[in-house]
Amino acid sequence: MKGRLFVISAPSGAGKTTLLKKVMATVSGLVFSISHTTRAPRGGDVDGVDYYFTDKNKFTSMIDQGLFLEHANVHDNLYGTSSGAIESQLSQGLDVILDIDVQGAAILRQSKRVEGAHVFISPPGLKELENRLRGRGTESEEKIQLRLKNAEVEMAAAKDYEYLLVNDSLEEATNILTSIILAERARGHRHPSGEPIDMVKK
Amino acid sequence: MKGRLFVISAPSGAGKTTLLKKVMATVSGLVFSISHTTRAPRGGDVDGVDYYFTDKNKFTSMIDQGLFLEHANVHDNLYGTSSGAIESQLSQGLDVILDIDVQGAAILRQSKRVEGAHVFISPPGLKELENRLRGRGTESEEKIQLRLKNAEVEMAAAKDYEYLLVNDSLEEATNILTSIILAERARGHRHPSGEPIDMVKK
Repeated sequence: MKGRLFVISAPSGAGKTTLLKKVMATVSGLVFSISHTTRAPRGGDVDGVDYYFTDKNKFTSMIDQGLFLEHANVHDNLYGTSSGAIESQLSQGLDVILDIDVQGAAILRQSKRVEGAHVFISPPGLKELENRLRGRGTESEEKIQLRLKNAEVEMAAAKDYEYLLVNDSLEEATNILTSIILAERARGHRHPSGEPIDMVKK
Repeated sequence: MKGRLFVISAPSGAGKTTLLKKVMATVSGLVFSISHTTRAPRGGDVDGVDYYFTDKNKFTSMIDQGLFLEHANVHDNLYGTSSGAIESQLSQGLDVILDIDVQGAAILRQSKRVEGAHVFISPPGLKELENRLRGRGTESEEKIQLRLKNAEVEMAAAKDYEYLLVNDSLEEATNILTSIILAERARGHRHPSGEPIDMVKK
């Protein structure tokens, strides 16, 4: 039985990372997608588990072959999500969470290369987002303004997602995202060649 | 904010009644649809709560006007589900469960008069269903065979439903049906004019 893909985006400050950690700890059979990267492995890094570690030549050749759903350059290292990596996890029957920005998710929807349930996690409001960003106390006013501006743009993308999840409280949001995953597992058109239907042949 | 309709069918013996009771006790803002009936009110019956009590003339006139999504004659009393009754509950912001047989649900899907999430509840298998029916010890062999035959026909309809729920264990099934309801509440295209999107206008 093939797994299902959950494509998840959120403006920064929506609490996505904490929420995803909670959900991963709650739901079995759920894994993060594994990215390719050109950065060197560190301490406990395991190839094929934490990342697929790849040299720059191979990575750029994969870009040229159109193997990445998305890729980005971060601090001179390349990071990318390949459709092959996701397909490999899905074919093991694992449900895969792809944590991706709104542009990446939009490209995925347009390309129709990978079917998945698209979930947008929203902070309760821009005011609340501003409070959260200031609450961190780690960023300059200029940076906060930039983040808020970006969040506004990203929020506009919410309407293109199948599910909208407003992260009012961590407990509630965990419950809803878990519910989305369980409900998707019960969706007929993504069902394993219809187990309950096959029954009648017994 | 308008409610959502959940159209739920199951072969007899799938454990639907117990499951629905558990879910109704778990999820807030969820009600059963209210049927019209020509039977006389009994003890604690409240008009507009338990049923809409209606005389035979009015009922048949409603049939003629095409106001019922489905109706049936049981022991010489008429029972029917009107789209108006459901719309009235939905417009109060309530999520409504319509417990309906597979034929009724098929008519609903074809007519497209009421949008809803269609959920099929299946027993784990026909063998298990047979055990449950025999376990009741209340029915003749002939009746059991008839029910199994009907279940087979009804199971074939499962593929037309959006969600398939195999009722292996009551706890698990309650969890999944609850999840389907919470997930549907988070679905963007059924979202109240997009609350999280409106936020950006603040």
